[in-house]
Amino acid sequence: MRVDLGNALDSVASPGVSRDALSRLDERVADAHERIETGRADDEHGYAALNLPETTDTDEIRSAVEPFADAETVLTVGIGGSALGAATLANGLDSDVDAYFLDNVDPEHVSALLDRLSLSDTAVNVVSRSGTTAETLANFLVVRDAMESANVDWTDRTFVTTGEEGNLRNLADRHDLPALDVPDGVPGRFSMLSTVGLACAAIQGHDIDAVLDGAHAEADRLAGSLFESPAYAYGAATYALDERGAGINAMMPYAESLETFAEWFAQLWAESLGKDGLGQTPVRALGATDQHSQLQLYRAGPSDKMVTFVRPTERADRSIPETDLPGLEYLGGGSLGSLLSAEFEATEASLAASGQPNVRLEIDRVDEYGLGELCYCLEAACVLAGELYSVETFVQPAVEWGKRAARGLLGGGNFEEADEVAEKSTLTVE
Amino acid sequence: MRVDLGNALDSVASPGVSRDALSRLDERVADAHERIETGRADDEHGYAALNLPETTDTDEIRSAVEPFADAETVLTVGIGGSALGAATLANGLDSDVDAYFLDNVDPEHVSALLDRLSLSDTAVNVVSRSGTTAETLANFLVVRDAMESANVDWTDRTFVTTGEEGNLRNLADRHDLPALDVPDGVPGRFSMLSTVGLACAAIQGHDIDAVLDGAHAEADRLAGSLFESPAYAYGAATYALDERGAGINAMMPYAESLETFAEWFAQLWAESLGKDGLGQTPVRALGATDQHSQLQLYRAGPSDKMVTFVRPTERADRSIPETDLPGLEYLGGGSLGSLLSAEFEATEASLAASGQPNVRLEIDRVDEYGLGELCYCLEAACVLAGELYSVETFVQPAVEWGKRAARGLLGGGNFEEADEVAEKSTLTVE
Repeated sequence: MRVDLGNALDSVASPGVSRDALSRLDERVADAHERIETGRADDEHGYAALNLPETTDTDEIRSAVEPFADAETVLTVGIGGSALGAATLANGLDSDVDAYFLDNVDPEHVSALLDRLSLSDTAVNVVSRSGTTAETLANFLVVRDAMESANVDWTDRTFVTTGEEGNLRNLADRHDLPALDVPDGVPGRFSMLSTVGLACAAIQGHDIDAVLDGAHAEADRLAGSLFESPAYAYGAATYALDERGAGINAMMPYAESLETFAEWFAQLWAESLGKDGLGQTPVRALGATDQHSQLQLYRAGPSDKMVTFVRPTERADRSIPETDLPGLEYLGGGSLGSLLSAEFEATEASLAASGQPNVRLEIDRVDEYGLGELCYCLEAACVLAGELYSVETFVQPAVEWGKRAARGLLGGGNFEEADEVAEKSTLTVE
Repeated sequence: MRVDLGNALDSVASPGVSRDALSRLDERVADAHERIETGRADDEHGYAALNLPETTDTDEIRSAVEPFADAETVLTVGIGGSALGAATLANGLDSDVDAYFLDNVDPEHVSALLDRLSLSDTAVNVVSRSGTTAETLANFLVVRDAMESANVDWTDRTFVTTGEEGNLRNLADRHDLPALDVPDGVPGRFSMLSTVGLACAAIQGHDIDAVLDGAHAEADRLAGSLFESPAYAYGAATYALDERGAGINAMMPYAESLETFAEWFAQLWAESLGKDGLGQTPVRALGATDQHSQLQLYRAGPSDKMVTFVRPTERADRSIPETDLPGLEYLGGGSLGSLLSAEFEATEASLAASGQPNVRLEIDRVDEYGLGELCYCLEAACVLAGELYSVETFVQPAVEWGKRAARGLLGGGNFEEADEVAEKSTLTVE
């Protein structure tokens, strides 16, 4: 894949970064690369995720899901990193097997989905490393109950993806369910290339080896210079732009199939780098649609943001019929793909013309290989950025307060955080 | 509906706003309200949108869509404000009639959707005020062609929503298609409560009078003080928080059915206020899911953001079966709704505990009335904020550059913007 930083340079944009500044930053990139390589060599927590293209055993995944070869639908019960990697692949790639995700505990949504599914034709994958995630376990209990009500033997239709110990592991042991291991040292948001992200894709019939091949190609390009590694080019440029005022990073793919990828990126970026008062705020956008929604702000609002464009350079096209509608003759006889390409190039240029920094990421196609490249590239970019910010990339301590408060509110123990909920300050207008 | 600013006060949050500062700001709110009322009284461009609860003729809408009473699916072909209002209602409310939207020109997505639809059972609504929007017209040409290929008489299955003149109006006249008028003085992003947003809902069998009733109730609450009007309370508070450093506004509903509402809000806020170097950047989030994705950043990242929570206080619930899974007994016997409520309150409190400003918006239910209230409230809040920022709320001049460039690239005329596309600065790493 290709990363083009041309429109992030200070000759184009403000904030922008000079070539000299990038060269100076490259010394820190070299050091960070060394740190990352050491972490990878020692399979340290987090860094181990960058080894997944080599360490993931796709045969094991295929064999675990073999009992579900007849499934017409795969339902992943998981939240955050336990769902977004699989969802990125599922929504990025076509399949005759539909994929659904229970990644929220909205009762109306859960009921509507369960009413729609033919549970006897569904494979259910319950994903939680700890086996204690409240939302996931609650949804699992509801799904299991729905299967029993539908006279479906849930033990025939369920497998788990979890750590070596915990509730889900015990459950799998007790009921002899197929179980996949969440690998050690891989935080949820970095787990797409493991059992966590690939089991759903395997059931959908996707070539999960090709996903890893694409990732492997990017891993091979990691090097001690941002000018030699697409991942580090992106990670270093975003860090430099943030330092210069671009605290917002709008991820704007020009492909509907990459809409979930933008959500996956938002988690990766926010949860890894958002700490110690640092970190860009990721914004999810979609080309060309959001030209008619967000572009006014991106061009004419505060100069506090950068836009990351992603596009495949090849895609199946569809022609636009000729037309005699006055003023629209120029569209007729063209194609939707050409129109989308023109919109992309025009939008990119329009941001440059108004001095708003932007970066272009290109893959050949939105296919297994391309998604593997793209996601690995951004994971490595994120790890590099974490080194440059000097934050603890692989933890997320700030979410614990709310988990304890929620657990206390639900009667799951005594937590002082729950008491603070009752003390809410109010100023109500109605 | 209720707006609670308690967690936006400087006694809780930083940035935060003091009660005194709100009182001082209230003098400007009174002036702005007067300006808004004058604009409404004169049906001025933009301000006229706040009169839609009174001026929209729902009988006209129902009668225009009557030929499509048998439709199993309604397909809206439109982009930006021509789609998002209708999509907010369609995705917010249950219906036996499915709604789809062609709001992008991705050829793979368009082909996949058209392959899936039974076009003879579909009502197609082509929406463009000018009748020249490239994406919409290109998609219409493709849809019409697909209907002809499927031996469906497109003139039987199509209606248009457009201005008094232009291509779509001419097309409707020539082929005797049902046509709805886009009302004068109503920019796309403010058009949900007009023909533009309500035709799709009418075909889906929703009570569009109730949508307007909810909006009307909020219109009646507009008053010369932010302490008396939920809409102005929200508009003034966001403005004050932005002035104090909260340049990002994360819209985080706790209801899956409000996911598209957050996109609608993002357009309203970005395109209306994003000008002259001003305007908050809207971020779309979803509770409880994004607690596992964005919350780490919101709590521990830069203090440059506020979170807007939206929740219905009533919803259909679903119980969680009892369980003997160790450590999860506290979940069993509860309900998904209680869990979601606890997550909401815990997350809100967790942001307050770390000093991050947040605002709570509450409606009774996600139904026609509630959506009418909510969306009108935010439209009026946006108009108020525009007055406080002193920006031209109802225009979007910054998107024109890219439109001309794209048109030039596609051979639709000579535009110097298109020449700049070829001069792109590059710094490629691959």
